[in-house]
Amino acid sequence: MAKDQLSALDAHWRAANYLAAGQIYLLANPLLTEPLRPEHIKPRLLGHWGTSPGLNLVHTHLNRIVREHDRDVMCVWGPGHGGPAVLANSWLEGSYTETYPDVTRDAAGMARLFRQFSFPGGVPSHVAPETPGSIHEGGELGYSLAHAYGAAFDNPDLLVACVIGDGEAETGPLATSWHSGKFLDPVHDGAVLPILHLNGYKIANPTVLARLPQEELDSLLRGYGYDPLHVSGDDPRAVHHDLAKALDRAVDRITRVQREARTTGGRGRRPAWPVIVLRTPKGWTGPAEVDGLPVEGTWRSHQVPLPEVRENPAHLRQLEAWLRSYRPEELFDADGRPTPEVLACVPEGERRLGASPHTNGGRLTRGLPLRPLEDFAVAVDKPGTALHEPTRVLGGMLAKVLADTADRRDFRVVGPDETESNRLGALFTASGKAWQEAILPTDEHLAPDGRVMEVLSEHLCQGWLEGYLLTGRHGLFSCYEAFVHIVDSMVNQHIKWLKASRELAWRAPIPSLTYLLTSHVWRQDHNGFSHQDPGFVDHVLNKSPEVVRVYLPPDANTLLSVAEHALLSRDHVNVIVAGKQPCFDWLTLDAARAHCARGAGVWEWAGTDDGLRDPDVVLACAGDVPTQEVLAAAALLREHLPELAVRVVNVVDIARLMPREEHPHGMADFEYDALFTRDKPVVFAYHGYPWLIHRLAYRRAGHAHLHVRGYKEAGTTTTPFDMVVRNDLDRYRLVMDVVDRVPGLAVRATGLRQLMADARTRHHAWIREHGTDLPEVADWSWPS
Amino acid sequence: MAKDQLSALDAHWRAANYLAAGQIYLLANPLLTEPLRPEHIKPRLLGHWGTSPGLNLVHTHLNRIVREHDRDVMCVWGPGHGGPAVLANSWLEGSYTETYPDVTRDAAGMARLFRQFSFPGGVPSHVAPETPGSIHEGGELGYSLAHAYGAAFDNPDLLVACVIGDGEAETGPLATSWHSGKFLDPVHDGAVLPILHLNGYKIANPTVLARLPQEELDSLLRGYGYDPLHVSGDDPRAVHHDLAKALDRAVDRITRVQREARTTGGRGRRPAWPVIVLRTPKGWTGPAEVDGLPVEGTWRSHQVPLPEVRENPAHLRQLEAWLRSYRPEELFDADGRPTPEVLACVPEGERRLGASPHTNGGRLTRGLPLRPLEDFAVAVDKPGTALHEPTRVLGGMLAKVLADTADRRDFRVVGPDETESNRLGALFTASGKAWQEAILPTDEHLAPDGRVMEVLSEHLCQGWLEGYLLTGRHGLFSCYEAFVHIVDSMVNQHIKWLKASRELAWRAPIPSLTYLLTSHVWRQDHNGFSHQDPGFVDHVLNKSPEVVRVYLPPDANTLLSVAEHALLSRDHVNVIVAGKQPCFDWLTLDAARAHCARGAGVWEWAGTDDGLRDPDVVLACAGDVPTQEVLAAAALLREHLPELAVRVVNVVDIARLMPREEHPHGMADFEYDALFTRDKPVVFAYHGYPWLIHRLAYRRAGHAHLHVRGYKEAGTTTTPFDMVVRNDLDRYRLVMDVVDRVPGLAVRATGLRQLMADARTRHHAWIREHGTDLPEVADWSWPS
Repeated sequence: MAKDQLSALDAHWRAANYLAAGQIYLLANPLLTEPLRPEHIKPRLLGHWGTSPGLNLVHTHLNRIVREHDRDVMCVWGPGHGGPAVLANSWLEGSYTETYPDVTRDAAGMARLFRQFSFPGGVPSHVAPETPGSIHEGGELGYSLAHAYGAAFDNPDLLVACVIGDGEAETGPLATSWHSGKFLDPVHDGAVLPILHLNGYKIANPTVLARLPQEELDSLLRGYGYDPLHVSGDDPRAVHHDLAKALDRAVDRITRVQREARTTGGRGRRPAWPVIVLRTPKGWTGPAEVDGLPVEGTWRSHQVPLPEVRENPAHLRQLEAWLRSYRPEELFDADGRPTPEVLACVPEGERRLGASPHTNGGRLTRGLPLRPLEDFAVAVDKPGTALHEPTRVLGGMLAKVLADTADRRDFRVVGPDETESNRLGALFTASGKAWQEAILPTDEHLAPDGRVMEVLSEHLCQGWLEGYLLTGRHGLFSCYEAFVHIVDSMVNQHIKWLKASRELAWRAPIPSLTYLLTSHVWRQDHNGFSHQDPGFVDHVLNKSPEVVRVYLPPDANTLLSVAEHALLSRDHVNVIVAGKQPCFDWLTLDAARAHCARGAGVWEWAGTDDGLRDPDVVLACAGDVPTQEVLAAAALLREHLPELAVRVVNVVDIARLMPREEHPHGMADFEYDALFTRDKPVVFAYHGYPWLIHRLAYRRAGHAHLHVRGYKEAGTTTTPFDMVVRNDLDRYRLVMDVVDRVPGLAVRATGLRQLMADARTRHHAWIREHGTDLPEVADWSWPS
Repeated sequence: MAKDQLSALDAHWRAANYLAAGQIYLLANPLLTEPLRPEHIKPRLLGHWGTSPGLNLVHTHLNRIVREHDRDVMCVWGPGHGGPAVLANSWLEGSYTETYPDVTRDAAGMARLFRQFSFPGGVPSHVAPETPGSIHEGGELGYSLAHAYGAAFDNPDLLVACVIGDGEAETGPLATSWHSGKFLDPVHDGAVLPILHLNGYKIANPTVLARLPQEELDSLLRGYGYDPLHVSGDDPRAVHHDLAKALDRAVDRITRVQREARTTGGRGRRPAWPVIVLRTPKGWTGPAEVDGLPVEGTWRSHQVPLPEVRENPAHLRQLEAWLRSYRPEELFDADGRPTPEVLACVPEGERRLGASPHTNGGRLTRGLPLRPLEDFAVAVDKPGTALHEPTRVLGGMLAKVLADTADRRDFRVVGPDETESNRLGALFTASGKAWQEAILPTDEHLAPDGRVMEVLSEHLCQGWLEGYLLTGRHGLFSCYEAFVHIVDSMVNQHIKWLKASRELAWRAPIPSLTYLLTSHVWRQDHNGFSHQDPGFVDHVLNKSPEVVRVYLPPDANTLLSVAEHALLSRDHVNVIVAGKQPCFDWLTLDAARAHCARGAGVWEWAGTDDGLRDPDVVLACAGDVPTQEVLAAAALLREHLPELAVRVVNVVDIARLMPREEHPHGMADFEYDALFTRDKPVVFAYHGYPWLIHRLAYRRAGHAHLHVRGYKEAGTTTTPFDMVVRNDLDRYRLVMDVVDRVPGLAVRATGLRQLMADARTRHHAWIREHGTDLPEVADWSWPS
């Protein structure tokens, strides 16, 4: 490499290091134009220095790669708690000032940059939505590599660099993310270049990967399918030289692999993609020792290496010496602007890492082509007589989306090996399952360029899809209801990301993350108790109401309507819970659309209240199985107590129950009262944990009269009807609940109550003997 | 191997396969003494055949290993959805009949064994608590290897075999579990023998690991630190021969490694432990083809290979041929008892896998030696004047437990690299951090035999600890509050396990799983929004009330009392939320004990209601930061409205708020009313999401008067007091809430309300300028 290029790289790196340290420490005197005094120092020293010099090094060198190789590059910063580094680079290249014009690229702007960092009302200490050029929050660790692959899918011209910290590398999600290469198509997808940064330490410990003998680490990375390139050292000149060379080799190899695959259309053996293993000291160029203890190159540099700068004059002197060691006077002119040498390797325009449109993916989003739902809807002559598998009906619609995006390639469906099991097999008429390994004659639907993605890791499904959505494309995650809890913490982070993004005018809205939760709690015939958990809805509803949406469509047509809405939405997390087992069709498509638009409504045809303002009782339901049981209970009441005014209410959009001030979909009190009354008994059959409904509705006038049935962990391997009986959600129990709650009915309907209790007894005897459900239940349909 | 041994192994395997298939299909005619007819077949065919022959093979061969090598062995069955296999083996060896005497080891018992499987009121289709010899539910996948290591820690004479399915191997937790060898001490710990069973397919797809070229898989396993031994084939004789040889080699190598380490006390380089890679067809020995499609050796054998046996005579014939192919008449005598040849390799007594005491760990549990809390408690002269870091105080107590179990080695503390950060550093006076890699001079507290376990994977921490507890030992998981959501799904499964175990008289209670959640939502000064999530409590409280306990001790002494209770408890999941930052001491040890025993109580010294039955207002709090704000609010009210009767109630045990019928700790209504009144305003400052309190208390008489403040996702990087202000949990807002809610006060206390609003305005101005909290807040203490 030419000497002046090397020197420019080093100047840029020093400038970034200076700016990173400055953000952690300085409130004033940003250019050190005067000797450092305590009042120049922030009162609270917060942030993470340890990883920052490494991130600065990688950013500096990626700048060069973009220019030299004329490549579109974006980067996912795994150790994103090193926020000061990424902010420093963005400020240097100018993308920060373009995004936040008040933080100018001069001394005044530098002072602002420093002050705002980790300061109340300022910017977060991690890489965050506020950070230009990022799609990856630097808080929770483990998801960088999955995000990087998600960004690379269907972006054939994009190179996604991904810095992986050696701490993060110990997490489970990261450990399995390395296998993503088995799902990346060199023809239609871009490339991922992992840079495993071994600085040796996490918060207070050495890291596992950094302490492995090199041959063992190499063996691991080769086993994951990569070809490692090593760069190690603590002499900046040598490291600059070696890293530039390694990056050139890596990018050349990627280019070669892609060219070969794309010209031959060739599906040879999956290529060994390059990975860079970068070993540099933690907290490199920071204080070597503090108070007699080694800091640089140890875990002690993780956060703030000099903690007492305001109080301890020796620390203050040490900080000044540290900052001056970067020779800021060579890096910034008198006005605080970076010198031409510092900027010599920085790319232009959208090629800058902080300005990549892929990292503000909504800018690239195209509307999803959806055909009219009429093409897929089921005909419903009479409610509750014909059965369909709702997810299979949805599969038809999704297959068309997949087909209609065959050229655009901006829609994917992910799931842990359950597409077929979840009755979405129609998808395979439009695209195969992504797979780069060998394909045997007995295999079905595998394809190197498939856009259905199956891997037995909910973490990978979620991480890939997040990366795909954050870069502006569309998708759906189909998952077993119980096991979506595996990604509870990931969805937390995504919701937080969306919440913060929505407050940033410069971030364009991105397609929503939509879950289809099926194989749900009520139908675990093959699996039983371990597969029964409807609590994801509760988890999600704790989060920012402007982001989260939860739908429980009761049949096939309502599922279609809800899915259409979800797929067209932006910046939401949509949770759709829908069964895959045969389920009664209740609503025509038109009725389904109207019902879903309202989110909750009266099913007049099912009730006996004939337009009364207040019925005797409200039977409410949310979810497919509860809806069936409520309808069966309504039929029993109609038969046995025809004079009772029963209203049937179905809730699709569960947030409708919340107060209007607490969720944008929340009903006003007058709407709620009109549906549920202010003082009549409401027997509510809910799909999940019953107390959720109380949590949502506790402020309503009629809350004292609300009685909720739902899943209460009374599960095992048994029949579908036995499941609802065990949890007191069955039609017979619901009728008993009505009898017990409608004033005056207890006496009048003693016989009916006994009849219901007898039916439950009959059920218990029958399943013990036959192992199947009572014929009267198995063969039930809505009476015409 | 001798021919008759080989033949005995094969007979045992055939018998187990026969019994596994029989469980899936047969309702009667268990020995096929008459031709198979439709009425012999179960009406609902449920279960997983595909993995069963492989599990049977491994079990058969582990039997031999136990005998030949005279070894204590237990096994973790990763593909535990192959429940029929493990049940078959337990029945063959007699441990099943000893556990469930009605399922006798004869034809009648065989019929029972078949009928009960996946039958309502019978046994689950997965390996489950009901299964003798198991510590590992076969439902959710990914945790087998971590459980196996957890079982092996501190069990030097135990060999833990672990069958890992190739589906499960794709999960993140499993992918990182392979690194557990870096934390296993060959001197003090037992050995883990992973058996990676590559049958090639998951539900509907090939698996990643099974399709890797063998050299790549070997490279991966070597990179993980293992030395692979391969066994492949579909010829039973050859596979028996090769597997027996491979197991012999593996066990010999393990014995050698252990002997060497233990005789030399030797801490050489971490050994390469053996792993067996077993490739046999999925659904091996089952139907080769069904309806013209290949089944054996493909994913189609995953569940029930012949689905229409009752309706389709061809399927019925095929089933009969399949079952008869095992030659049951050679395997069972006329009474249905296994022949001597079948049992020739089966071990005796507690050496049988289904009878290992380690798999019913409570039988081995010894009481934890806890010293009197007086040794660790802080002295409290006056409440709210001195500060301690509660977790640091707890650290002193835990250090003694660690020290006092130095010889017994039955207590461990796990955490993701946060022991020191969570102020539990005192632990290192008693034991080091487990670490088998190189140790450098700059490292601190690393030790090959350490019983503090740190790895940056919450999954590993949880999995190891579960395995350790399930085998009867004690432990604690210290974790950042927000990131414990990473293990939401794992704790679900553990709670389900405990719930089912508690219903089995033969399962001895095991030590509870106790979480110390610290670095909580209110004190994320370094990290901000991504690290703020108090929802784990909500998640856990959805689960079985007999298992879950949640404690929010408000200071150091209450934390000690709660921790003591949790560590001595059995069969619970305890969640303790406690801060690590300096926090006021409120209660003396005696007062703390009394308060924690009640779980919730009035702090008379803090209120002004002077024993009134009903005060004007109740200020309630749960959690350390809310307690401080409530006390500060009480002090403000005392100063400005001395005539107002304010009662201060603190809640430590959050389930006390629940109705008595819904949680064993729930208060009776009269108790609740005595604390909170039936009709006075209650302003409740809660640590987490405010609606949780409503969910717990909605049935109480006074619920309409309950007003809860808590975290509502209004987070960022800011100061501690600004966090409570942003979420309306601050002292000033609480006083305003009181003014707004006590009848008649709005007019009387207009001035006070304005004073409070002004204080909030002052706060906003101050932090914007100084970046720190108002001095009046930072320097506040309880007025004496």
